[in-house]
Amino acid sequence: MAKQRAALANGAECCRTDVGAKLSSAQTKEYAGWFKALSDPTRIRILNLLAANRDAVCVCDIVKHFPISQPTISHHLKILKDACFVQAERCGTFMYYRVNRNCLDDFPNAARQIMDV
Amino acid sequence: MAKQRAALANGAECCRTDVGAKLSSAQTKEYAGWFKALSDPTRIRILNLLAANRDAVCVCDIVKHFPISQPTISHHLKILKDACFVQAERCGTFMYYRVNRNCLDDFPNAARQIMDV
Repeated sequence: MAKQRAALANGAECCRTDVGAKLSSAQTKEYAGWFKALSDPTRIRILNLLAANRDAVCVCDIVKHFPISQPTISHHLKILKDACFVQAERCGTFMYYRVNRNCLDDFPNAARQIMDV
Repeated sequence: MAKQRAALANGAECCRTDVGAKLSSAQTKEYAGWFKALSDPTRIRILNLLAANRDAVCVCDIVKHFPISQPTISHHLKILKDACFVQAERCGTFMYYRVNRNCLDDFPNAARQIMDV
């Protein structure tokens, strides 16, 4: 930056720095989908709840932790399922949801990749 | 689940499981803002590019890596700046952007916290 500043002070053109993203287009597209699914505090909280339990949790047990209706919770769960964060299975009249275990590593790894650490 | 299934098969009510999110409302709100900022592949790519460089990068150097206009890139950079992922400084007529070093740890840590790992 010091060299760049000096160059700029002398009226030179902006210095060109070597830069380049390390992630592929496919990766950024996939990660953007994940982050879009988690761009809502309720969905983060639902995912965190399922991750903390690991085993499948009945939708009625999820609902009791939120001041919102079951249809709204089910809508959030569908978005999390479409993004592959959670898996669903029906048991009688009840739907059970569990965290997708692949995400336990994949999601933190994505964050590390983006931050290049 | 086996016990739950047996109970359900006997026509019992859905078993109650002990569940609970570990993240606070304030944390989920903050993280949702971060993920919203990264719900776009271009913004992920810009952040990854800045993270890979660590030092400040001129906006004109960022632009050359994308098939989109400088105003659009600047719009994406503003969203990343508002979410505190990047920091900006003016140098003459040029704007320079760098990754917010706090995010190098904080962002992967957030992902780990959500996934409870």
